[in-house]
Amino acid sequence: MKKLINDPEHVVQEGLEGMAAAHPDLVKVHFDPNYVYRVDAPVEGKVALISGGGSGHEPMHGGFVGHGMLDAACPGAVFTSPTPDQMLAATKAVDGGSGVLYVVKNYTGDVMNFEMAADLARLEGIEVESVVIDDDVAVQDSLYTAGRRGVGTTVLAEKLCGAAAEGGMSLSQVAGLCHKVNEWGRSMGMALTSCTVPHAGKPTFDLPEDEMEIGIGIHGEPGRERMKLKAADEIVEMLIEPVIHDLPFKSGNEVLLFVNSMGGTPLIELYIAYRKAHQIAEKHGLSVARNLIGSYITSLEMAGISITLLKLDSELIRLWDTPVHTPGMRWGI
Amino acid sequence: MKKLINDPEHVVQEGLEGMAAAHPDLVKVHFDPNYVYRVDAPVEGKVALISGGGSGHEPMHGGFVGHGMLDAACPGAVFTSPTPDQMLAATKAVDGGSGVLYVVKNYTGDVMNFEMAADLARLEGIEVESVVIDDDVAVQDSLYTAGRRGVGTTVLAEKLCGAAAEGGMSLSQVAGLCHKVNEWGRSMGMALTSCTVPHAGKPTFDLPEDEMEIGIGIHGEPGRERMKLKAADEIVEMLIEPVIHDLPFKSGNEVLLFVNSMGGTPLIELYIAYRKAHQIAEKHGLSVARNLIGSYITSLEMAGISITLLKLDSELIRLWDTPVHTPGMRWGI
Repeated sequence: MKKLINDPEHVVQEGLEGMAAAHPDLVKVHFDPNYVYRVDAPVEGKVALISGGGSGHEPMHGGFVGHGMLDAACPGAVFTSPTPDQMLAATKAVDGGSGVLYVVKNYTGDVMNFEMAADLARLEGIEVESVVIDDDVAVQDSLYTAGRRGVGTTVLAEKLCGAAAEGGMSLSQVAGLCHKVNEWGRSMGMALTSCTVPHAGKPTFDLPEDEMEIGIGIHGEPGRERMKLKAADEIVEMLIEPVIHDLPFKSGNEVLLFVNSMGGTPLIELYIAYRKAHQIAEKHGLSVARNLIGSYITSLEMAGISITLLKLDSELIRLWDTPVHTPGMRWGI
Repeated sequence: MKKLINDPEHVVQEGLEGMAAAHPDLVKVHFDPNYVYRVDAPVEGKVALISGGGSGHEPMHGGFVGHGMLDAACPGAVFTSPTPDQMLAATKAVDGGSGVLYVVKNYTGDVMNFEMAADLARLEGIEVESVVIDDDVAVQDSLYTAGRRGVGTTVLAEKLCGAAAEGGMSLSQVAGLCHKVNEWGRSMGMALTSCTVPHAGKPTFDLPEDEMEIGIGIHGEPGRERMKLKAADEIVEMLIEPVIHDLPFKSGNEVLLFVNSMGGTPLIELYIAYRKAHQIAEKHGLSVARNLIGSYITSLEMAGISITLLKLDSELIRLWDTPVHTPGMRWGI
């Protein structure tokens, strides 16, 4: 295992220490229980947004804490759900009196723990809503998941709902928006290589030098099919066609096209993939009104990509363009 | 070779097509000769900044074209200098009548070709200045280089000089600033794994599973020493101590601390490294006034990092904070 770490036991702790040292203008980090929260939290009168999940997907979620996005993020151990006590502590730290929305990726542990945290927070008089993101069209059930997995649309939901909350929407409105984003977003990913969880010390799965996995999950869960490596254009087609047909996206739709690196895929390859994805989207009559290209929801150093399409309307475009200032996403400020 | 590409012959062309499709609001791409240039070029009365070099280091340089940074970037083949005709064509496309500054990384081919392009441009009546960046403290001479190599400080110089040009500085002033940034910046990198040049189809160098290369160049050129893999904290110390002692940075200096991924190193590891680098800088009495963390000057999918320190004064801080809007670096807009 070749990693730039000290001790597998300390990866999450030391990564958070680095975030705290790097971004004191944006976030604070609370340790034991661990959560990253806005430096100006609680923002009085604003709906607070909290997400969380296993570590190893950076910048998601801690890197999305800041103005116009999340109020707090709860990082678990690598690829392991955070605990209800983390979520409850974060909730109490950022509640500004207008309620809290949990944005939860659909993995059994996350869903269960966020539900428990919501119950505990309500007992303390905090209004909590929870929206589960399940946008991965690759497989129906999966390791760790009943139903579809939550992947790339989560990043977009955090941006859009963060903008809505910053703009003064109520808790039920922000939750409603989050449901709409989840309904309008679809994703699928693939891997060229496995990642290695620090604790495990060896690759999560074996993938021969001439093979790839289509429909991979962000923890290396099996996808749709393992097959011989193909050209980038064919791979992109295998990802985006099922995404387009699932919603279905229809000719004339405005969309946001998000090409995401799983962590180890360099930017020049993302642009090669974006090129083809954009062509296919246009061939279907979709109008790519916004895009996002880079490493936003990763699986440690896994090589591979995911493609997310989100249907847009004027509300979503306006919210997307709203200023955001977090360690991992920034514009307008 | 596991890459998300179609044909090694088309990697640069298709990557540029992806950039053109993704960022029509920011850049245009001219093909044959290849260059990326500002959508609003030429900006009348503004000094124009041009950089370039081999492809495979994305987002550098094409991702740094836009408001407040470069006016044009000339991408060569992977790890291969662009040609004088590319540079001349880019120069004519972006010259706004106030002269053009070339920001050149110190590699023999780049230096020679940018010199030739400057001569050709001057023959056509365009005023050109050229500044060579040579900030890598790892080795004196190297494969492809007489003297020190140009690495991380290039990114900072492009941001700072871009801000200066946007703010109305004259060509000689922007060139003077670029010399100052080069004099005040120092870097060193390391690799955990090799990268694979698409044309070559196999890793540039062999690095056993338990070894790393300290002082690596951005094309995989040999560094100072190959040794057994160490803990992240020790690695960071081996990089930053020579950087600090070279300038030398002195107690009381304000600095920008830049922790850069070589491409394949995930963000959580960058934060672990940043944490230690920040601690060491503070131990030396340096005040980390600004920072930059991410993949900015990469070597395809190489795993590893580089650390750059830049001494700051109030002028550089002001220029750093100035709005920038490019595909690869954005704030304030």
